Amino acid sequence: MATIRNVAELAKVSTATVSRVINSNGYVNEETKKRVKEAIEQLNYFPNDVARSLFKGRSKMIALFVPDITNPFFPELARAVEDVTNRNDYTFVLCNTDGDIDKKIDYLNALQQKSVDGFIIVSSSLTEDHLKNIQAPIVALDRIISPDISSVTVNNRIGSRDAVNYLKSVGCRRIAHIAGPEHVDNAINRMRGFLDEVKHEDWFDSDYVVSGAYNFEMAREAAINLLTKNPKIDGIFAGNDLMGAGVLNAAASLDIKVPGDLAVIGFDGITMSERVTPALTTMAQPIYDIGARAAEILIEQIRSTSQVVMREEFNVQLTERQSTLRREQTNEH
Amino acid sequence: MATIRNVAELAKVSTATVSRVINSNGYVNEETKKRVKEAIEQLNYFPNDVARSLFKGRSKMIALFVPDITNPFFPELARAVEDVTNRNDYTFVLCNTDGDIDKKIDYLNALQQKSVDGFIIVSSSLTEDHLKNIQAPIVALDRIISPDISSVTVNNRIGSRDAVNYLKSVGCRRIAHIAGPEHVDNAINRMRGFLDEVKHEDWFDSDYVVSGAYNFEMAREAAINLLTKNPKIDGIFAGNDLMGAGVLNAAASLDIKVPGDLAVIGFDGITMSERVTPALTTMAQPIYDIGARAAEILIEQIRSTSQVVMREEFNVQLTERQSTLRREQTNEH
Repeated sequence: MATIRNVAELAKVSTATVSRVINSNGYVNEETKKRVKEAIEQLNYFPNDVARSLFKGRSKMIALFVPDITNPFFPELARAVEDVTNRNDYTFVLCNTDGDIDKKIDYLNALQQKSVDGFIIVSSSLTEDHLKNIQAPIVALDRIISPDISSVTVNNRIGSRDAVNYLKSVGCRRIAHIAGPEHVDNAINRMRGFLDEVKHEDWFDSDYVVSGAYNFEMAREAAINLLTKNPKIDGIFAGNDLMGAGVLNAAASLDIKVPGDLAVIGFDGITMSERVTPALTTMAQPIYDIGARAAEILIEQIRSTSQVVMREEFNVQLTERQSTLRREQTNEH
Repeated sequence: MATIRNVAELAKVSTATVSRVINSNGYVNEETKKRVKEAIEQLNYFPNDVARSLFKGRSKMIALFVPDITNPFFPELARAVEDVTNRNDYTFVLCNTDGDIDKKIDYLNALQQKSVDGFIIVSSSLTEDHLKNIQAPIVALDRIISPDISSVTVNNRIGSRDAVNYLKSVGCRRIAHIAGPEHVDNAINRMRGFLDEVKHEDWFDSDYVVSGAYNFEMAREAAINLLTKNPKIDGIFAGNDLMGAGVLNAAASLDIKVPGDLAVIGFDGITMSERVTPALTTMAQPIYDIGARAAEILIEQIRSTSQVVMREEFNVQLTERQSTLRREQTNEH
């Protein structure tokens, strides 16, 4: 592999001049610059990134923290982050944190040692205090960390109200909610949106909110219990699509027809929601766009010296599918 | 942040001694070693990974190349790779290659510049020739690159024979295959396994093999065409679970009952296969185990000086679910 010395010899200049050309600092006349560039090309010389990151304290790497990449929401986010980082010549380090605060802190320390240039973090447990020693820019994604840290999220509460009103519009008279984890801000806001629209209804019962922890299996079991105890429930708003798929599975095992006897709507708009049977109606987030936007904001912050806090909130949009097909009047009860 | 010089001053030794303790090379007496370690602890000193990688040519990073992390097989593999790398204090760089050879080569060059310690590669297009300038160890995962590169795969051909024989055992009389991409070795071997078991059957027709390209939507369309043209088909072996889900979706849209009229089996054993309705019978790979094993082999190769080529092949196992529930004799035709 060619070294800077080989380049200098071929271009008949000093290594310091080659270095000035590579790093675009200091004056080099155009004629010499051209000769150095030709030598670099001819020798297929790559300036070593490790040496450059030691010199500049930058590694051209960014890290993405997600709870668990096997939850199908996160690969779609990760894909968007990587597309943007790759286009900007950054490498992308993926960290599964399992929501474990010690694992997150270990990762932050290890990556700071590697001079990672910035972090995109999906987390419900990291606080500003945990992050105070991190020099690199941070963007919170999907979940807010603090008002002083940039974030990209969606309007969970309004989207959830829309979901409930939509179920009412297709004829549902008793609507239940499978909620996400209590410590996750977006899950809380989705539950609040649900309650906004049902708490004054005479049929509403607090037993109609059950926890599914953003988990397929737990949502399935919660739905089986809920529907067995309350056979009059004719609509379910699941706090995410994965739990919505769990509800569909529960309904099938109880021989409850979807959408005939029960309408189901999810939240997120993951690809899986189209692939289950019946296909799941959902309040779709622009998943790719929010992941890409988080990466863009991070890269802007890495490149600029002033650190403006950016907080962007995207809207969600109803995607109608088979699981809520409008019922005939005759089907209402 | 503390420097090696601060540590040396506090421990009353030279920086060279501190360096010997940190890197465990050269003799340092126990008493001094203890003093240095206490100083490191007291000052919360982290030896800089960037400097260390410049010195040793190692970054404590490994890279995983996958075609696309949004294909649900790959997050499960990636999760296993990261668990092992993390336990061994390696950081994990994820690269989506989209099967694009130029993107792969760009990534290889960029990561070699960052002194990445090793590569785990899922690829059907990289050849030994593309990799000849890569100094770091490489392990091929899921797909073989060449006999001279270590690999971890499953026995696709035998698993596929088992799938077909299982469909026969539950009463299928006309079995079709939705095949993966023609340039992917595991897809070819799954098709060969299918053909091994059906090519001498008098009912077999070459139209019973159609391409679904390991893609949900393409498999769905292929299955709709296939089942419309050949209504006597009563069993389908899909080359992977994602395509199996596409077949279930196709059957639902044609009002063909699964498993009553059509038995469906997939391949892979991704989590999604349990979550579709009806749940999909599959030839399950030990996905987590193969991902973890690839990472273990890579780390062994990074640590050792001799490069032995390791080729490990795992078995797949039938997981019976609703999509093939044994038919009654009366249902056979």
